[in-house]
Amino acid sequence: MAPPPGDKTASKVNQESTPKRSISSVLFVIAMQTEALPLVDKFQLAEQSDSLFPEGVPWMRYSGKYKDLNINILCPGKDKKFGVDCVGTVSASLLTYASVQALQPDLIINAGTAGGFRAKGASVGDVYLVSDVAFHDRRFLFLIRKIPGIFPGTEGPTAYHRLDASYCYCLLNEAQDDISVDQKLMPAVLEILSSVIYPMQVLDLYGVGSRQALPTPNLVKELKLKVGKLSTGDSLDMTSQDAAVILANNATVKDMEGAAVAYAAELLKVPVIFLKAVTDIVDGDKPTSEECLQNLAAVVAALDKAVTKVVDFINGKTFSEL
Amino acid sequence: MAPPPGDKTASKVNQESTPKRSISSVLFVIAMQTEALPLVDKFQLAEQSDSLFPEGVPWMRYSGKYKDLNINILCPGKDKKFGVDCVGTVSASLLTYASVQALQPDLIINAGTAGGFRAKGASVGDVYLVSDVAFHDRRFLFLIRKIPGIFPGTEGPTAYHRLDASYCYCLLNEAQDDISVDQKLMPAVLEILSSVIYPMQVLDLYGVGSRQALPTPNLVKELKLKVGKLSTGDSLDMTSQDAAVILANNATVKDMEGAAVAYAAELLKVPVIFLKAVTDIVDGDKPTSEECLQNLAAVVAALDKAVTKVVDFINGKTFSEL
Repeated sequence: MAPPPGDKTASKVNQESTPKRSISSVLFVIAMQTEALPLVDKFQLAEQSDSLFPEGVPWMRYSGKYKDLNINILCPGKDKKFGVDCVGTVSASLLTYASVQALQPDLIINAGTAGGFRAKGASVGDVYLVSDVAFHDRRFLFLIRKIPGIFPGTEGPTAYHRLDASYCYCLLNEAQDDISVDQKLMPAVLEILSSVIYPMQVLDLYGVGSRQALPTPNLVKELKLKVGKLSTGDSLDMTSQDAAVILANNATVKDMEGAAVAYAAELLKVPVIFLKAVTDIVDGDKPTSEECLQNLAAVVAALDKAVTKVVDFINGKTFSEL
Repeated sequence: MAPPPGDKTASKVNQESTPKRSISSVLFVIAMQTEALPLVDKFQLAEQSDSLFPEGVPWMRYSGKYKDLNINILCPGKDKKFGVDCVGTVSASLLTYASVQALQPDLIINAGTAGGFRAKGASVGDVYLVSDVAFHDRRFLFLIRKIPGIFPGTEGPTAYHRLDASYCYCLLNEAQDDISVDQKLMPAVLEILSSVIYPMQVLDLYGVGSRQALPTPNLVKELKLKVGKLSTGDSLDMTSQDAAVILANNATVKDMEGAAVAYAAELLKVPVIFLKAVTDIVDGDKPTSEECLQNLAAVVAALDKAVTKVVDFINGKTFSEL
């Protein structure tokens, strides 16, 4: 990779040694153009067809000055073959990486729509500021050798038994109290856990990839934002395995990009804020795809209103004032 | 992004207008260092600690000249927090993107271990040359409105019913012949399919992301390689939903990077070959994690032998001779 236009190391040192410098450039990563275009209008940004990126990539960039901030909105654009927005983690991580390298922003904001969990207090139209992100579909901890009779439902001829994530977490964290485990067999259970499960647990933690968003206590207080954790996966639906990990992630909202944006941003040492607006209730009784389409316009309007308030709040402030 | 060191457009034109130019540079993307290091020795490559990549990324590069080829082996390296290899699609796509931008190779080879399906003829130790790649854990096509009684098992008070992918594909492709659908209700089925399923089907095809590897008929014939399709997902295990999509992908081998490497390579217009060695049988009776560890050393040796043969074959040849 050719050296980036700015000297990252120097700029980081500057930022750290002069904490009072106001935030001057904000990079938005927004997966769907439907979500981005009202903000492009609001901030009066112009589409850029420059050569920041390799020829042929579908990525879209809109930029301009809003108040004292240089704002860039980046979208992954439309898939060349299918014409749909390039949603998902691979595309979001590539776009984040390439645009941070090219533009060296002070701050990334990943804004977009998401599913919400009613059980955690989410309603359609809520906009969440995210405190933590993690993945829910990168599993390493799902296999355990079966001992006939030790767990309920494991009798039979199969030598191995596949358990779901919640059960493995339960075994790891609460095995001594689990009433379904025969206490006489606990030494055998623990031996299995140490030989098979523990080495995989480290990989599983890597897979889950839990990361914190930039803490912004004043922003939350001032704008009275709802705060929740975000879980990211590459599917619109949710399997029982996804649900178990989402539960372990303690997530209130579920999207398809956040944790991947966080991964790429951490690699390049740029702080991220996430704003996620709820289009559908995952633990409700309507299918996600249908509910999404019905609510999209109204929820995008709510998201854009919240984003504008956040940008107005950030304008002129230092990181320590957020 | 700053312009890449080479002029991509010019080099592509050169390549197309002079098809007889031999392949001169090969970039390996290899997820695990255990898989890569024997090849580093074999090709007598040297670890490079240069500044091709942004400061702080864990990516490893080994490079050197082997016969007439410039060879670079790239590994995503160890996760800073957990010390495990940065396996998976996000990391693989970022590494592919950044290293292609920096090194402008003629050809990418993604080599590594994989799970194999006995039902498709795979055995432990087999090395497959991959014809096609696709994802199996990026689903958009799993939700359909329930009509009581139209599908078996859908009676009851719930207004919506979640179907698995194989069932949706069946409905889309073979509904007229599906004996489980009441033929009198077919018009209603088709109406549901068109209003709910079809729009999601395009997104689902984007998610599946099926792509062809570079066709290499002479290589396959000369080295008598087994050829099969590869399916990629971010989990070590396989859920029933994964299994349904893997079946639809007609995959013989299953890994955690291939389709993501293909996505990034296609963005930057570089052809890819995939070599995948089978460490464990997914549809066998041993758990993947355990079987993987038992067979790893022997299978990596088989992979490295195959990779060496492939590189020896490529040396001095043009693309049209592969």
